[in-house]
Amino acid sequence: MGGKDKADKGKDQPGQDLRDLLRIPVGERPTLAAHAADGIPAGPKDKAAGLAETARMGERLADLQERLYAASTAGDRRRVLLVLQGMDTSGKGGTVKHVIGLFNPSGCRIRAFKAPTPEELSHPFLWRITKALPQPGEIGIFDRSHYEDVLIARVRALVPRPELEERYGEINRFEASLAADGVTVVKVFLHIGYEQQRRRLLARLDNPEKYWKFNAGDIEERALWPAYQEAYEIALERCSTADAPWYLVPADRKWYRNWAVSRLLLEHLRALDPQYPPADFDVEECRRRLVGDR
Amino acid sequence: MGGKDKADKGKDQPGQDLRDLLRIPVGERPTLAAHAADGIPAGPKDKAAGLAETARMGERLADLQERLYAASTAGDRRRVLLVLQGMDTSGKGGTVKHVIGLFNPSGCRIRAFKAPTPEELSHPFLWRITKALPQPGEIGIFDRSHYEDVLIARVRALVPRPELEERYGEINRFEASLAADGVTVVKVFLHIGYEQQRRRLLARLDNPEKYWKFNAGDIEERALWPAYQEAYEIALERCSTADAPWYLVPADRKWYRNWAVSRLLLEHLRALDPQYPPADFDVEECRRRLVGDR
Repeated sequence: MGGKDKADKGKDQPGQDLRDLLRIPVGERPTLAAHAADGIPAGPKDKAAGLAETARMGERLADLQERLYAASTAGDRRRVLLVLQGMDTSGKGGTVKHVIGLFNPSGCRIRAFKAPTPEELSHPFLWRITKALPQPGEIGIFDRSHYEDVLIARVRALVPRPELEERYGEINRFEASLAADGVTVVKVFLHIGYEQQRRRLLARLDNPEKYWKFNAGDIEERALWPAYQEAYEIALERCSTADAPWYLVPADRKWYRNWAVSRLLLEHLRALDPQYPPADFDVEECRRRLVGDR
Repeated sequence: MGGKDKADKGKDQPGQDLRDLLRIPVGERPTLAAHAADGIPAGPKDKAAGLAETARMGERLADLQERLYAASTAGDRRRVLLVLQGMDTSGKGGTVKHVIGLFNPSGCRIRAFKAPTPEELSHPFLWRITKALPQPGEIGIFDRSHYEDVLIARVRALVPRPELEERYGEINRFEASLAADGVTVVKVFLHIGYEQQRRRLLARLDNPEKYWKFNAGDIEERALWPAYQEAYEIALERCSTADAPWYLVPADRKWYRNWAVSRLLLEHLRALDPQYPPADFDVEECRRRLVGDR
């Protein structure tokens, strides 16, 4: 009972696979400037339609998450890890908030990575990452990630160049091991434009309640915009793999960003097709015992 | 600008302090059977009013959380830790989901404590707890907690009695140290009735999609209901302190449980009165630099 009907209720429209459209092909270096940050490459064409479609996906996403979690209680080790990267103000935090709103937050493991602590720096760069991975059945969300170690680390020359160059391969081997362990890694680059960043930074200066979100260092980083764009292009090229591809999501429009990330998660979860496990106990006998213990 | 207005918008009605009403007085042993699990000791009188009032609290709670988090970026170490305890099916998970829905989940640190792992067992019982504490500015939520170590540990005699008796004092000293470090500890016992638990367990047996939530062991635990009620009464008596009081929330009605927990959080956050920090940079100069970097 229940099972089939409920699964059908939130059934998705057939349509183009967004993964195919936004995936960075293996071995290809993207030219970020050639991708419109305010573009709408597929899906709803305006904000009203986008919000409505995203809301409609919510029920199906929550259902799939519950199935994934339920399956883990019977030994299914599969889980999802959403990795969010993007320039300052690209909306990583807003995306985390949006995504958790779709799911049961108890089954989500969120981690925002800041500048490494002294303890973290004393370990290999993947150390703090492995500690924050989702458990079987969970949806993990990283706000920044190990990619900072080839982004700011490259732009700011935080490590010797040979060590930096080693890291791309280390990342690929690490992510391949995750995939082999049942982790579906969904890496999303939130692509915003230089002008959009200016508007968002200025908005923080217009409201004293937003001052705390502003960091004078953000302006220094912004001055390195071309170097960051190049560092992203290199990371997207070298680390978009069959095991763990990168997706480029235009992020100037928040409603589109939210729709696209939701849609990518939906497509991945649907492909996993997690199932509620059967009872590992005698249902009738348990019912009798419960009814009888008045 | 902004600040005052926004804070006022979600201003709460004056009214009775729910903390005073639900707090277990220091040194008093409650008689759980004397507290109606389906009671409505204060606040909205029916479900419609309860849902509406809870929704109204949402904006104010989110605002206070953002202020708490913002203050932490300027060195304020204060944070909140909500500890949820209750019998199986008392709604701990549902309360977590509800509470996070009110806040920005990025600022919440949730931890569900299961039976201790071998590694956890090899450490003092508070070890795993200290690792899961909220950071300054965060709202921490524990679904079960160190209280399991005086609840199931007592009922199932998992440790020698002298060691068990020591733990109440250890817990009190630990929580006092948290309070001294700026942690507002809000401990909530979700009180459900024996009949209500039967209904909720039977409901899980009526739906194959809920089988995974059912554990035949739940029936064994239920058989020990009186022993658990006594263990709770002892824990509430010995560990309701001035630093970290226990609150008893009637939880047979989910809408009332959610309203009461929201209201308790609101009263605690309001008492903290966290403030947005002032700018630690030259606003006008930053604005000029941003406008000028076209």
